[in-house]
Amino acid sequence: MIELAEKLRPVLSVRIFGEEKCFGPGVARLLRGVEEYRSLRGAAKAMGMAYSKAWTITKNAENNLGFPLLRRQTGGKNGGGAALTPEAERLLAAYDGYCQKLRAFADAEFEADFSFLQGGE
Amino acid sequence: MIELAEKLRPVLSVRIFGEEKCFGPGVARLLRGVEEYRSLRGAAKAMGMAYSKAWTITKNAENNLGFPLLRRQTGGKNGGGAALTPEAERLLAAYDGYCQKLRAFADAEFEADFSFLQGGE
Repeated sequence: MIELAEKLRPVLSVRIFGEEKCFGPGVARLLRGVEEYRSLRGAAKAMGMAYSKAWTITKNAENNLGFPLLRRQTGGKNGGGAALTPEAERLLAAYDGYCQKLRAFADAEFEADFSFLQGGE
Repeated sequence: MIELAEKLRPVLSVRIFGEEKCFGPGVARLLRGVEEYRSLRGAAKAMGMAYSKAWTITKNAENNLGFPLLRRQTGGKNGGGAALTPEAERLLAAYDGYCQKLRAFADAEFEADFSFLQGGE
């Protein structure tokens, strides 16, 4: 039997690839930030990320996906910000649901598959 | 309908955490290399990784897991190499099976969840 100091758990990272990486946790977090702060600059700032990096990440994802994720929103106190396109909203919702389902499956299977690590025998 | 140049697919990365990261794709690849090359140095070389880095990765995993992954093997043309401990063999087999199962589940669910991206409607 193996003694462990800490209970073990699986941690999944889910990415979507076409020819290159299209979508993953980083873009998803940026999009959630845009929903919250109504601007990519605000989303980047909240993540401690340079705006130029956030812009590049978003552009790469858009190029690889083949559709826009952000649209300009005119007006507002900063003279216009950003919002998600309907496609981005749908993709983010699908991604979040998919990750949740995968994590639930991973948690359920982990117990049995790694019971020998948890002092289970 | 969204037109995509390339069919999309999910890519999972599976890590095992306790208090810190214990095990993941990097350590798994090193262990498979030790099985093949009968030494950590050989495994590191085959991955284009510095031996010191391979050693640190392995030691950290051992410390976080609380059991040894490698054992010295005496004899052989290089005056002794490394082999996996029985615990490491078991962990690697469990990890590989677990990843395979998760990927099969992820692939099966992906089609339906992201059909809107594949021009499915």
